Amino acid sequence: MSKKLTTRAEDYSKWYNELVVKADLAENSGVRGCMVIKPYGYAIWEKMQAELDRMFKETGHENAYFPLFVPKSLFEAEEKNAEGFAKECAVVTHYRLKSDEENKGKLIVDPEAKLEEELVVRPTSEAIIWNTYKNWIESYRDLPILVNQWANVVRWEMRTRLFLRTAEFLWQEGHTAHATKQEAITEAEQMMNIYAEFAENFMAVPVVKGLKTEAERFAGADETYCIEALMQDGKALQAGTSHFLGQNFAKAFDVKYTTKEGKQEHVWATSWGVSTRLMGALIMTHSDDSGLVLPPKLAPIQVVIVPIYKGMEQLDAIRERVTPYIKELRAKGFSVKFDDRDTHKPGWKFNEYELKGVPVRIAIGKRDLENGTFEVARRDTFEKQSVGGDDLVQLIENLLEEIQENIYKKAFDYRANHITEVNSFEEFKDVLENKGGFVSAHWDGTTETEEKIQELTKATIRCIPLDAKEEEGVCVFSGKTSSKRVLFAKAY
Amino acid sequence: MSKKLTTRAEDYSKWYNELVVKADLAENSGVRGCMVIKPYGYAIWEKMQAELDRMFKETGHENAYFPLFVPKSLFEAEEKNAEGFAKECAVVTHYRLKSDEENKGKLIVDPEAKLEEELVVRPTSEAIIWNTYKNWIESYRDLPILVNQWANVVRWEMRTRLFLRTAEFLWQEGHTAHATKQEAITEAEQMMNIYAEFAENFMAVPVVKGLKTEAERFAGADETYCIEALMQDGKALQAGTSHFLGQNFAKAFDVKYTTKEGKQEHVWATSWGVSTRLMGALIMTHSDDSGLVLPPKLAPIQVVIVPIYKGMEQLDAIRERVTPYIKELRAKGFSVKFDDRDTHKPGWKFNEYELKGVPVRIAIGKRDLENGTFEVARRDTFEKQSVGGDDLVQLIENLLEEIQENIYKKAFDYRANHITEVNSFEEFKDVLENKGGFVSAHWDGTTETEEKIQELTKATIRCIPLDAKEEEGVCVFSGKTSSKRVLFAKAY
Ligand SMILES: [Zn+2]
Ligand SMILES: [Zn+2]
Repeated sequence: MSKKLTTRAEDYSKWYNELVVKADLAENSGVRGCMVIKPYGYAIWEKMQAELDRMFKETGHENAYFPLFVPKSLFEAEEKNAEGFAKECAVVTHYRLKSDEENKGKLIVDPEAKLEEELVVRPTSEAIIWNTYKNWIESYRDLPILVNQWANVVRWEMRTRLFLRTAEFLWQEGHTAHATKQEAITEAEQMMNIYAEFAENFMAVPVVKGLKTEAERFAGADETYCIEALMQDGKALQAGTSHFLGQNFAKAFDVKYTTKEGKQEHVWATSWGVSTRLMGALIMTHSDDSGLVLPPKLAPIQVVIVPIYKGMEQLDAIRERVTPYIKELRAKGFSVKFDDRDTHKPGWKFNEYELKGVPVRIAIGKRDLENGTFEVARRDTFEKQSVGGDDLVQLIENLLEEIQENIYKKAFDYRANHITEVNSFEEFKDVLENKGGFVSAHWDGTTETEEKIQELTKATIRCIPLDAKEEEGVCVFSGKTSSKRVLFAKAY
Repeated sequence: MSKKLTTRAEDYSKWYNELVVKADLAENSGVRGCMVIKPYGYAIWEKMQAELDRMFKETGHENAYFPLFVPKSLFEAEEKNAEGFAKECAVVTHYRLKSDEENKGKLIVDPEAKLEEELVVRPTSEAIIWNTYKNWIESYRDLPILVNQWANVVRWEMRTRLFLRTAEFLWQEGHTAHATKQEAITEAEQMMNIYAEFAENFMAVPVVKGLKTEAERFAGADETYCIEALMQDGKALQAGTSHFLGQNFAKAFDVKYTTKEGKQEHVWATSWGVSTRLMGALIMTHSDDSGLVLPPKLAPIQVVIVPIYKGMEQLDAIRERVTPYIKELRAKGFSVKFDDRDTHKPGWKFNEYELKGVPVRIAIGKRDLENGTFEVARRDTFEKQSVGGDDLVQLIENLLEEIQENIYKKAFDYRANHITEVNSFEEFKDVLENKGGFVSAHWDGTTETEEKIQELTKATIRCIPLDAKEEEGVCVFSGKTSSKRVLFAKAY
């Protein structure tokens, strides 16, 4: 760690960018808009993947893998989808380089190796997958298809930010095929619920479940379910989406099945995804001016032990003292690091593990050795306590649970304090400018109003919450009647 | 399963292609040269990944993720590497599509969205990674870097075959940086050994460890270690490679570190990878004319239970009978499927699971119910036995171990019988044509001879085995002196 992090109050955006880099999570690469996910950041992503993958499999999904490239003719088959993504497609046009005769040692694209049909680097895989499902589906016996893939996708972005918006990102995309509309809707809702459960129970990030408006819907979907989180700067972040695709892709790719009664019907579809963007949500929800704060359930290192010693003899004594506890903790499934490097001082290490968000730190020095104690510090509150060996393992176990709950509660309370009901456009603008967070307001249901509000305030409708009460009201902007409130916010 | 598989004797190549598709492992996609890995095939790949990933982590490696794209100027920095891959690079030249004004609903590449610098879709990641490591390495304290990534890569191929040679494939690529030459060589050797251990202990595929000749070496490497397997048609298959890259990439990207003594030195490098090609090796090593034969350690379903019943009452009785055994087997970590579908007959299911290579099948019918027995069949030998409930779980446990050992032994014996020492070029050609397998012969060490032999026989030097004895001899082709035998073979 070279120098202090910019604080959130000074410059929230700068704080985030610095934190991602200093905590060794990710960095910009030599390729415009593409990031390198560093080992520490990737270890968190792997933990996310493992939990999500388990949840997908427990609900009957299998993994598969589909091509990176989508031929242009397949890409354009579902028109709305194609239109929605066309502006951000990386396109492969050639399949060979050759030596540049004018510049020794340099290469040029070989003009003779031009592809007959251009290939789009997948921004999402509905097209290539439905072109495949076409051959997998004949009758109702072949349904449902419940498939997920873990993959990289590319959406060309002009302004990028690590994890939040990058030209290439990692994600999972589920693509399911069903015999009935209701079954597909149930699947889309199930996956939104799984995402919410994952966000809340593992990431400790409270989310609002809702529906997107027509304007914010996935291109090619009939309905988009989403989970929306709130960051500490009062901006919302869409953390996952699950789409009911109707029969749009089945029609575009002519995917029909024979019903039990022998009729031919188009298949119903869903798709759903979360991406490395979740890393951004995780970082921004919990972290503070000292660095990352990680939920114990996703922390690559849950407990770090820092010896404070002079000379090898003391270090050996400390090592001997901590070894049985390390074994016991590891046997219980906790990830424990004993940092006995002699290249760095304890104070440096304390800062480093604070920066990296390790939930629990144990320090042990000469006096602890004499007293049979350990100094235990928790990352979320910085509280320290001295504890004897008999109580250590149980204390740490409790502490990890407590930290997981505490950071969720903190985020939940912040969110609860930042959903503000407003009843006029003046109030709307005031809350948005001066308080931030979600603004709960009546809206007349038109895209026109939605767009005008966005033009004037930069706020978008994050979602129509699934639990929105029926309530008579008037649109804060147009004054037309409205039957429920929706959530507006500025968003990532 | 629609109809019988072509036999290996009839047409080995056709047998393979049919098997991959019929066993639901993979299929060709709508994108030239790219495959779809279907859920059953992907489940095997996931098991491979899990074991390899564990082995990598146990030897101190961490995962990370680097960009899919390599700017042309970085790609060409290491000249030999660039030259080696230039002819098979997919190249992104544009970042946007737009509506085709002449064809409603169609898209064209937007000529205004041409990239200033073309992006190569990574055929391998040395260039982008060493451009990154440059910023990670200052002093000896930053070394070694032991990083792996699981990723997709693209190498444009004109003639493709599922798993064996596809334009896009999945792999892992380890990229390590070291302070000393010896440490890098040790790492490259370690990873070759891990690959060999994985191939033999998990895939049940015996391999020869060796070094590639200069002509067969990875472009940009000083030395390539490899593991070579032998398929049932007598052709060899390179199953994994581990490269000692010397200081080639460090020099190309100017990556230096400060030694303990304060000197500036170039960093030493390795890279190593295995890919979905391993699926091809797995399939071709063990499978037979009835379908796939899978090693129990990598089989997605290790035990399948097929009820033979008339009416729901019998099915219920069977279900009740097998449930405790399923629980017990699953508790022991085995993957068990109870196929109670009433849409297919038992005979159809028997064929299906044979085709899919499920190691152990349990059948239970009315008479078994009366006698308290189960019919247990093993996939590798087709042997069946009737067994009582008390012995069932133990028998299956033993059987799974036995099958793993037996198929390895079978492959090992086949391989042992197909390494043939020859001492003249006549013999060489005769063995290659009429027996196949590895031909162990003296070679004069020149690329010229190697190429001539390849022209005349299509055989290449698969490797210089690490355990080759020092032995005086003369090259089978040139008659020049030679100090050890190398292994030639026709290869995939
Ligand atoms: Zn506030
Ligand atoms: Zn033979």
